[in-house]
Amino acid sequence: MDEKKAVFAGIDEREFEDRIKRVQAQMAKQGIDALLAFSTEAEPALVRYFSDYWPSFETAAVLIPAEGTPVLLIGPESLTYAGARSKIKEILQLMDFRESSQPDYPGSALPTWSDVLKRCPAERLGIAGWHMFPHAIFNNLEKAFTGKAIVDADAVVRSVMITKTRAELDCLREAARISEIGLKAVLDEIRPGMTEIQVAGLATAAMLQNGAEATGYPVWCCSGPNSRQAISRPTHRAIRCGEIVQVCVGAKVAGYSGSIGRPLVLGQCDDATRRFLEVGRDAELMTIDLMRGGTPAAEVARQVHGFIRKSGYGETILYGPAHGCGQMECEYPFVETSSTFDLAEGMTFNVDIFLADKEKGFRWEDAVIITAGAAEPLSSLRRETAPLPVQEGGRA
Amino acid sequence: MDEKKAVFAGIDEREFEDRIKRVQAQMAKQGIDALLAFSTEAEPALVRYFSDYWPSFETAAVLIPAEGTPVLLIGPESLTYAGARSKIKEILQLMDFRESSQPDYPGSALPTWSDVLKRCPAERLGIAGWHMFPHAIFNNLEKAFTGKAIVDADAVVRSVMITKTRAELDCLREAARISEIGLKAVLDEIRPGMTEIQVAGLATAAMLQNGAEATGYPVWCCSGPNSRQAISRPTHRAIRCGEIVQVCVGAKVAGYSGSIGRPLVLGQCDDATRRFLEVGRDAELMTIDLMRGGTPAAEVARQVHGFIRKSGYGETILYGPAHGCGQMECEYPFVETSSTFDLAEGMTFNVDIFLADKEKGFRWEDAVIITAGAAEPLSSLRRETAPLPVQEGGRA
Repeated sequence: MDEKKAVFAGIDEREFEDRIKRVQAQMAKQGIDALLAFSTEAEPALVRYFSDYWPSFETAAVLIPAEGTPVLLIGPESLTYAGARSKIKEILQLMDFRESSQPDYPGSALPTWSDVLKRCPAERLGIAGWHMFPHAIFNNLEKAFTGKAIVDADAVVRSVMITKTRAELDCLREAARISEIGLKAVLDEIRPGMTEIQVAGLATAAMLQNGAEATGYPVWCCSGPNSRQAISRPTHRAIRCGEIVQVCVGAKVAGYSGSIGRPLVLGQCDDATRRFLEVGRDAELMTIDLMRGGTPAAEVARQVHGFIRKSGYGETILYGPAHGCGQMECEYPFVETSSTFDLAEGMTFNVDIFLADKEKGFRWEDAVIITAGAAEPLSSLRRETAPLPVQEGGRA
Repeated sequence: MDEKKAVFAGIDEREFEDRIKRVQAQMAKQGIDALLAFSTEAEPALVRYFSDYWPSFETAAVLIPAEGTPVLLIGPESLTYAGARSKIKEILQLMDFRESSQPDYPGSALPTWSDVLKRCPAERLGIAGWHMFPHAIFNNLEKAFTGKAIVDADAVVRSVMITKTRAELDCLREAARISEIGLKAVLDEIRPGMTEIQVAGLATAAMLQNGAEATGYPVWCCSGPNSRQAISRPTHRAIRCGEIVQVCVGAKVAGYSGSIGRPLVLGQCDDATRRFLEVGRDAELMTIDLMRGGTPAAEVARQVHGFIRKSGYGETILYGPAHGCGQMECEYPFVETSSTFDLAEGMTFNVDIFLADKEKGFRWEDAVIITAGAAEPLSSLRRETAPLPVQEGGRA
């Protein structure tokens, strides 16, 4: 028994094969006869979706032909790592996918883009991950490409990834379950005087000890004036009673990222802050309630933003009220007033109410699965706005 | 007191200003009259070096004119986060630096590349982070650029970053100190039956509780057959007695990344494995001893690889024996047989002996500071190859 009994199954080989077939069907519709899906350490979703391999330090891509089996393209140092992970059997190493420190690897003779493209001749090559595909690699690829065009193929991949399978939904449920374990560790142990980093560390430690393969994103705690940060990283600031201590934590399970956002207040909370938190919490509950299969996404955004404006907090809106989730904590599509799609069964979102005024801000966030009826919420722990009692053993 | 007493000072504002001046001097030498230094969540070094801002989810860049003050360029959601971190006062938001999920942000009116370039007119624009700068953003930038050429400027920035200041050396010393706390937590608590992820979690938790702002890279433990992975991520595999349990941990402090690599064996260790580990450990000690100011880097690589070959393990070499360190765990330059530079005082390296045969592998890694005489090693904990006694409470 190499594996712990409790290890979650994740995605099986047949489903990986099915993903290739589904994207090949979309490629045919779009007139794309080879697809290159690119990923980095921070944006691993596309390569992991098609191969289960997950780059670190180096970058990677999956090359998918119009028909037949794909090839995993990796950097010079990842062969044994990728070999142990990849569901794609054929793996080629390219110097273009090496680390940013750009070692020479004297003596190594790796394939070139011409070698790679020979195995997968194409007239029209699509790149998924278009908006992060490096210009320097694009230049090398373009020189070796003998077809007609290299085009943005993000839409091709998104059309396949946007609806989750039963196994993917189970991954997201498990990620949410372990994310709640991370939040619970914070609720049990948080004390004034801890630093934001220490608070984020409590959640991280609990998730890694309880089945997470990693955090789903660089999790954070941001407190007091820092709570205004829509995107943040934790600092050495010591948290205090009476201020908003925003906790954003999420576990990664089999490639899928959970996320829970909760504003906590220790000790006592002034009425204005509590009212602000309640409007946000109610906006989150309203969003969850509105997110039903068949509803236009823009309609959800309009109604929720309308409620926030009517409550007197219109100036505190930055975006939202929800965004896709899956492999990435935040993935296409966004639910916003400009959205042009309808919610549909099997889509998954993080309901994400972030509001901030000049002094403070907060985020209520939980994942949901869209069904024909009411959305299935994946987490719900601690939606109260009442302050947390201050525990003994505080360091400040 | 917002800050914990023990918080490490890091880099002061004057040093950030000095970095801009030093890179401007190099730009003048290279005929580059504006520099765009680009970073991502996984590769934050350049933007953090010039601004102290550290992107997450979104990307970012620092635009440095030939003379005068720089501008920090960020995405639509990072304004309050960047405002709290950045040593650069002027901050502009660009849609091109938004998240990969590509929200619309309806109603927001952000500057364009034309607006940005108007503030910093240039004939010859250099891009640092050239090998990761996205093609799609390059296209937008090129359309707005009215000068003559956009060129790779990595060498300009590297010439400034390669020699560390006293404050930077202190950051690396502190990162190594906290990395040793992470390793110590593993040595104290590791037991057969723990998963690789749980072992990595022990180190992560200890580092975050003791002054690290984050891990320096996605740290890992890889055991048994997984120990062959030069780059790895931890899995749910349960570790066992008698096999190599490779631990690679590092703390990030004020932007600077530590790293310590240690192969551990629990219980008993067969003679062949122990001999293999000893050759690696001796290669590490030999590398540290050879790395003196004035020595050609290639000469270090040749001698160390010669020793490994003479010991009968030539086939197990993949690269090395050292690489630059600083903000990134692995940054330019690499010490390899093809290197063309001499070691010089103030350069910093991770000595990194990675060897792997068909069944097992390991890495001995520690950071060193190059001086005129013997290198200053930043960590040394547990260089023994003797097996660790198995502690009670094991789960397997």
